[in-house]
Amino acid sequence: MPHWVDGQPAESLPLEDRGLAYGDGLFETLAVRHGQPLQLERHLSRLAEGCERLAIAVDLEQVREELELFCRQLGDGVAKLILTRGDGLRGYAPPSLARSRRIIMGASQPIYPVGNAQDGIELYECRTRLAEQPLLAGLKHLNRLEQVLARAEWQDMRYAEGLVCDVSGRIVEAVFSNLFLIREGVLQTPALTRCGVAGVMRAELLEHAESLGVPCVVGDYERADLLGADEIFVCNSLYGVWPVRRFAGRDWPVGPLTRTLQAFARRLTDG
Amino acid sequence: MPHWVDGQPAESLPLEDRGLAYGDGLFETLAVRHGQPLQLERHLSRLAEGCERLAIAVDLEQVREELELFCRQLGDGVAKLILTRGDGLRGYAPPSLARSRRIIMGASQPIYPVGNAQDGIELYECRTRLAEQPLLAGLKHLNRLEQVLARAEWQDMRYAEGLVCDVSGRIVEAVFSNLFLIREGVLQTPALTRCGVAGVMRAELLEHAESLGVPCVVGDYERADLLGADEIFVCNSLYGVWPVRRFAGRDWPVGPLTRTLQAFARRLTDG
Repeated sequence: MPHWVDGQPAESLPLEDRGLAYGDGLFETLAVRHGQPLQLERHLSRLAEGCERLAIAVDLEQVREELELFCRQLGDGVAKLILTRGDGLRGYAPPSLARSRRIIMGASQPIYPVGNAQDGIELYECRTRLAEQPLLAGLKHLNRLEQVLARAEWQDMRYAEGLVCDVSGRIVEAVFSNLFLIREGVLQTPALTRCGVAGVMRAELLEHAESLGVPCVVGDYERADLLGADEIFVCNSLYGVWPVRRFAGRDWPVGPLTRTLQAFARRLTDG
Repeated sequence: MPHWVDGQPAESLPLEDRGLAYGDGLFETLAVRHGQPLQLERHLSRLAEGCERLAIAVDLEQVREELELFCRQLGDGVAKLILTRGDGLRGYAPPSLARSRRIIMGASQPIYPVGNAQDGIELYECRTRLAEQPLLAGLKHLNRLEQVLARAEWQDMRYAEGLVCDVSGRIVEAVFSNLFLIREGVLQTPALTRCGVAGVMRAELLEHAESLGVPCVVGDYERADLLGADEIFVCNSLYGVWPVRRFAGRDWPVGPLTRTLQAFARRLTDG
């Protein structure tokens, strides 16, 4: 699988890169179909917001061109883009002349059990809580130890994903997915102003639901809201939508709005 | 300056390393004098605690031997050790067979203005707040975006360091140092159970102060405690102790206990 650094084939990274030293950078994971990166504009716009908030200099047109060229060569699969602040050996201060570094790694499309999408998944309940850091909330940055700890909590293949709450007990997201609940016809998803990653598929689904006239609320929810929901699902830009059929000993049917949004997500992930 | 990866001279890191992908690792920065890494046991014991809490497999004897060999070749300067969980291309789940990777980078001793130690420093007041994450508190892990943001707040060379508080407003530490205050003869330093890095020099100073019969309290402090302190200083294992002579528009003299602990720290950093 191809790997590029700053537009050139490469297998390694200079040790001075601040992505390694401090997790000083951002990433995007894009589905690639028939040589095209999917939802490219949404990924680029999240990247742009991250660069602005972290004050990382980036040439977005260069990133776009490189991603498009890379994906043409990849054909089908997944392209992971990592953008770091670039080199800087010692000290936290961002070098005034830092040149951000672009890393693109290709991979094959992950293969998930077909039952995940068809019948729904069982959701693990992680004990790891997310810290509340508004300065980083929503960004897909490289400081991901919390997700590593949360994902390390379960090995049982029965669980396809895990729910994570913040330190105050609000539900936030799943380890590598965003989370939605549906109650009395209203589509609800946790606000990501304190922690969490504002996913590209989450944004697509919110926009699509609104276009269908479905009332949508982005707010604060507790575990009890989840348990009282009529439908639950998780989503990301690689697999689309997985209904949640079981969580905390309770069972849910796969509901009609989940199926509607899943069909929409499938059109997106099929390219 | 020499750089080693897994004991071999190297200038780069495989792109699949989880240190880059997730900041999934730890680091230590050691002063090196006459070919010897200083406070090696304390650095190794913090590293060991970090590995245990993050479940990173490590051969500590191998790390020790490599560091000692590296420092003999370096002579004088700074050795930065990064220990990552090793390779793993996609997904947060720690690979069951992950082999941690050891990176050692040499650098020259940083040169600070002599006035920092002699006359004390002016401390900037960072607006960036540290999130509270007990699972990571105290560790010198690779998720350091908060420090990058805090350090990016000031360019004015007048400030040698910056104070950081947690999101609840407690004082925690400085950007690359720990913080102490002295009030009525009691040495006080913030508890690092919610956030912050438990520094090697901080531990040395606490132990030494206790051996001198100085009462020491590790607790929760607010900005007002800092402003009401008789003496303030910051410390780390490279520069030792810097008195704080100015913060938030107020001035402090360099006090006697600060000088005592500074002299002790100098013996440590001089090797």
